[in-house]
Amino acid sequence: MNVHHNIYKNELLNHVLPFWEAHSIDQTHGGYFTCLDREGKVYDTDKFAWLQGRQIWTFSTMYKQVEAKQEWLDMARHGADFMKKHGRDKLGNWYFSFNRNGSPLVQPYNIFSDCFAAMGFGALYKIDQQDEYADIATKTFQNILHKRNNPKGIYNKAYPETRPLKNFALPMILCNLSLEMEHLLDKRIVDDLIEEVIHEVMDIFYQEESGLILENVAPDGSFVNSFEGRSINPGHTIEAMWFIMDLGKRLHNKKLIERAIEIALHTLKTGWDTENGGIFYFLDVKNSPMQQLEWDQKLWWVHIETLVCLAKAYELTANEECKKWFKIVHEYTWKHFRDEEYGEWFGYLNREGKVLIPAKGGKWKGCFHIPRGLLQVYKTLEKIEEKQLKTIKF
Amino acid sequence: MNVHHNIYKNELLNHVLPFWEAHSIDQTHGGYFTCLDREGKVYDTDKFAWLQGRQIWTFSTMYKQVEAKQEWLDMARHGADFMKKHGRDKLGNWYFSFNRNGSPLVQPYNIFSDCFAAMGFGALYKIDQQDEYADIATKTFQNILHKRNNPKGIYNKAYPETRPLKNFALPMILCNLSLEMEHLLDKRIVDDLIEEVIHEVMDIFYQEESGLILENVAPDGSFVNSFEGRSINPGHTIEAMWFIMDLGKRLHNKKLIERAIEIALHTLKTGWDTENGGIFYFLDVKNSPMQQLEWDQKLWWVHIETLVCLAKAYELTANEECKKWFKIVHEYTWKHFRDEEYGEWFGYLNREGKVLIPAKGGKWKGCFHIPRGLLQVYKTLEKIEEKQLKTIKF
Repeated sequence: MNVHHNIYKNELLNHVLPFWEAHSIDQTHGGYFTCLDREGKVYDTDKFAWLQGRQIWTFSTMYKQVEAKQEWLDMARHGADFMKKHGRDKLGNWYFSFNRNGSPLVQPYNIFSDCFAAMGFGALYKIDQQDEYADIATKTFQNILHKRNNPKGIYNKAYPETRPLKNFALPMILCNLSLEMEHLLDKRIVDDLIEEVIHEVMDIFYQEESGLILENVAPDGSFVNSFEGRSINPGHTIEAMWFIMDLGKRLHNKKLIERAIEIALHTLKTGWDTENGGIFYFLDVKNSPMQQLEWDQKLWWVHIETLVCLAKAYELTANEECKKWFKIVHEYTWKHFRDEEYGEWFGYLNREGKVLIPAKGGKWKGCFHIPRGLLQVYKTLEKIEEKQLKTIKF
Repeated sequence: MNVHHNIYKNELLNHVLPFWEAHSIDQTHGGYFTCLDREGKVYDTDKFAWLQGRQIWTFSTMYKQVEAKQEWLDMARHGADFMKKHGRDKLGNWYFSFNRNGSPLVQPYNIFSDCFAAMGFGALYKIDQQDEYADIATKTFQNILHKRNNPKGIYNKAYPETRPLKNFALPMILCNLSLEMEHLLDKRIVDDLIEEVIHEVMDIFYQEESGLILENVAPDGSFVNSFEGRSINPGHTIEAMWFIMDLGKRLHNKKLIERAIEIALHTLKTGWDTENGGIFYFLDVKNSPMQQLEWDQKLWWVHIETLVCLAKAYELTANEECKKWFKIVHEYTWKHFRDEEYGEWFGYLNREGKVLIPAKGGKWKGCFHIPRGLLQVYKTLEKIEEKQLKTIKF
């Protein structure tokens, strides 16, 4: 690659993590503020379970993989304390959101609150072996597996049986979560789960005809001609493909890796806005009008996850097309999302690449995709550079 | 006004109603298709209670107010048959959506399904005095009043008591529905309800400080500094203001009418995009970053309802500012939303005024706002023209 890993590492350490360290800690009531404007000022004090869990994960992982800095351990513990105290209902389900002092605002209707709590506490346990952290992570994980066939529970508004649908997001997240939680789980459970979620993602949600992954399918994987059934989320697919590559690496399954790369490249080309650059948020597999009014917007996580996917793909296979696309996406992403002035990156651009919402965080964007992506890309580029150095030496 | 009523009447009769007559009838399973692409082709066969109820209302009202055409009566009955047969659960709540043959898809979580069913059957009863229609309309209306303090019922995801909020949409709709249903209700019930909803809209949701109406407030009307509490929907407010003017006319309350006009004009000026023209979909009363990614888009109903509001305001008060703004909004709206080629109007434009979603109908857009708005404007302009003619004669 011509892009050096130091660019990513420097951005992570000097422009992104410091933003969250400076602005996100609620010293009074605990937990993290995530509603931060462009400069880092708190514009809303509500707290969201997804983003609390994810920030615990981010700082735990930086401590583990980058440097054992006391501040990062403290930051992770700070969020964990808040979540331990306020996060769950009596049955151990994680609420979706809280007011500033931790009273629940929105019921536990969303299973991804549980997923990111498990991920956060699982990562924290890696750097701070407190039984309580392991216990919260594993109990939450068991609860996820228990609820997975009806994740919304009593909040599910679908009328039973008229049109059963299953959604891609949970199996996708489980591809990643199974590896994130491996140190806490029985090997057999992990092995079985991995086999199952790979099958779900690569066979059930993958649609032969279009070569794309659908966001919602019938239980047997067949196509359902409705708004939900026609929906494609390119960023989701591409992110899932690097989760699958990680699993392929663990299983020494070269064929699986190559298939993931093929799907990722095809999705990227399908989702690329040839007029303005960037990757669309949603598409319709039949090119029908969409219900998502935000379909043509360019989102931070879509672009950084694509960079992770392409870097990993190139590292594992030296596929030249991945290298070419990495450069294209790198250029677009750094030019449009990065904020030279105040740190962190913008989240939401309009189709033309102009900033649509100038905040650095909110209800859905926190300290997660940008730092995780920068970490993954820098570590991957580093490996590629080491390999190239070795090649030159011999 | 310099715009003649015939422009609106002609558009309604020759470009809009014919589109729905030609493309929306499902001859096989009953009810209306609303997912129609630019040309009128059905791209999805699901049916939505809001839009079924609203189309019954539209054709009943055209029959009553424009011309007693048999086809229009048949069209209204066609939707009513489908809704009678498939629309309700055992308790009389209206489902949100159905598949093509009428099996429910989404549970009755949404009270506006009930509102538009009552409105549709109420209007149909005016032109076809079948007891059953009156019965469905009144029972549904009673059920709305019964559920109004917890409209989402078991599907409400808010945790009780942490932050009680009430939403503007229901009192707003009741301002209109109370008049739409007047022929079926006890006078005392109507009078009390009208008094109550005027108070809700003009005192509780109206915020002195900004001069704007908030989408969500605390039960006592006080401001709540959260995403929901800061949210402003200019189109909603302006539409509500012509409902209030209608009530003001009925009550011979000139002061109420003048206050409604003042709020409407202030909201319009606040919501107007001075750079590109058109009215924003959402704003934040504190100018904080918003959660609605579609905030800067230009929507059909916002613009046509604004034209209705301004025309009525001018008719009632001869306020010159309303005349000036009518022209500005008229020009923007006709230029950007109208589809010369295939009839009906586009629904969703981006900030710059380019068509974002080329459909004529979908899950939320059907045969309602455009025909209702064109009807209201043409009738209002006609009255203004008659008055002017009289003035000239004397």
